[in-house]
Amino acid sequence: MPEPIESKEAVTPSNTSKPEVGLTGRKIIYDKDGKPCRSCNSLLDFQFATGGIKGIGATKKEKYNPYPKDIPADVEVLGKSSWTLLHSIAAKYPEKPDTKRQQDLKQFLTLFGSFYPCWFCGEDFEKYIKKHEPKVETQDSFGKWLCEAHNEVNVKLGKPKFDCNLWKKRWKDGWEEDP
Amino acid sequence: MPEPIESKEAVTPSNTSKPEVGLTGRKIIYDKDGKPCRSCNSLLDFQFATGGIKGIGATKKEKYNPYPKDIPADVEVLGKSSWTLLHSIAAKYPEKPDTKRQQDLKQFLTLFGSFYPCWFCGEDFEKYIKKHEPKVETQDSFGKWLCEAHNEVNVKLGKPKFDCNLWKKRWKDGWEEDP
Repeated sequence: MPEPIESKEAVTPSNTSKPEVGLTGRKIIYDKDGKPCRSCNSLLDFQFATGGIKGIGATKKEKYNPYPKDIPADVEVLGKSSWTLLHSIAAKYPEKPDTKRQQDLKQFLTLFGSFYPCWFCGEDFEKYIKKHEPKVETQDSFGKWLCEAHNEVNVKLGKPKFDCNLWKKRWKDGWEEDP
Repeated sequence: MPEPIESKEAVTPSNTSKPEVGLTGRKIIYDKDGKPCRSCNSLLDFQFATGGIKGIGATKKEKYNPYPKDIPADVEVLGKSSWTLLHSIAAKYPEKPDTKRQQDLKQFLTLFGSFYPCWFCGEDFEKYIKKHEPKVETQDSFGKWLCEAHNEVNVKLGKPKFDCNLWKKRWKDGWEEDP
């Protein structure tokens, strides 16, 4: 994890420069392809690094606190947390994973179901995997498979289904065009 | 997942009865030992089933929405989500897991680090596991090991450390005495 760097000042990035420090005072982390890493930075710093910041100030952080800190997670908090993790994993899964990585992902999903704290949710997930083999061949195939798994739960809970053609906008790229 | 059952009415539980339906209208889910399952029900229904509800109404649900729905997770949301899942897994891990279950948990943690969307956070986690082998022999040993791993990150981020002797209150039982 990066240490806060308070002695440096954030500088607005141009098309040709990559800022080292974000508006939070922390070092900005880039992916190995050189692009700002969305899941490694706070939203504020990510938007700053991509030049896409539009009037979102530090008060945005107030919305980050999802739950009173001292209460064990209930089924809703646990579900939202877990889908967030899984969809974000899909967003960073390789476009062309090798066979080992594909096998590892299937293994991870199986273990995920078996350790899931809500036992009947976990059993449902394990059944879903057995019936619908995870499509781990590409990032997009996995992202869509996961979205469909999530939709099956949405339907059971009476929630609206998500358009799985849009999964990358929701979980990877965001809804706005790249700056 | 249980379907909402709207035709039945919630009945306040006594020491001798187990309510079938909670205040949300959904079926109450019990663990296999017969106790209300905290991670399978909404907080409201869990508190109702344990008889511990004290003036917490449906407005509590307003606090459940942790993030604008259409924005990919940043490092803070991802971190909070993932620690929530991992600590909740510890809370449901067996008191005396067999050897297979212990091996599975170690495998899960290794894969977790390798798939974690924030790459440098995942690498940190993988390094931590190599340096501090996960203590998976009992529920309590794993819960404390995980708490210590979380504390190492807390220190790096300048956040306060948590007293790991209290991990079960934070992630399993809650802070109040059992009803």
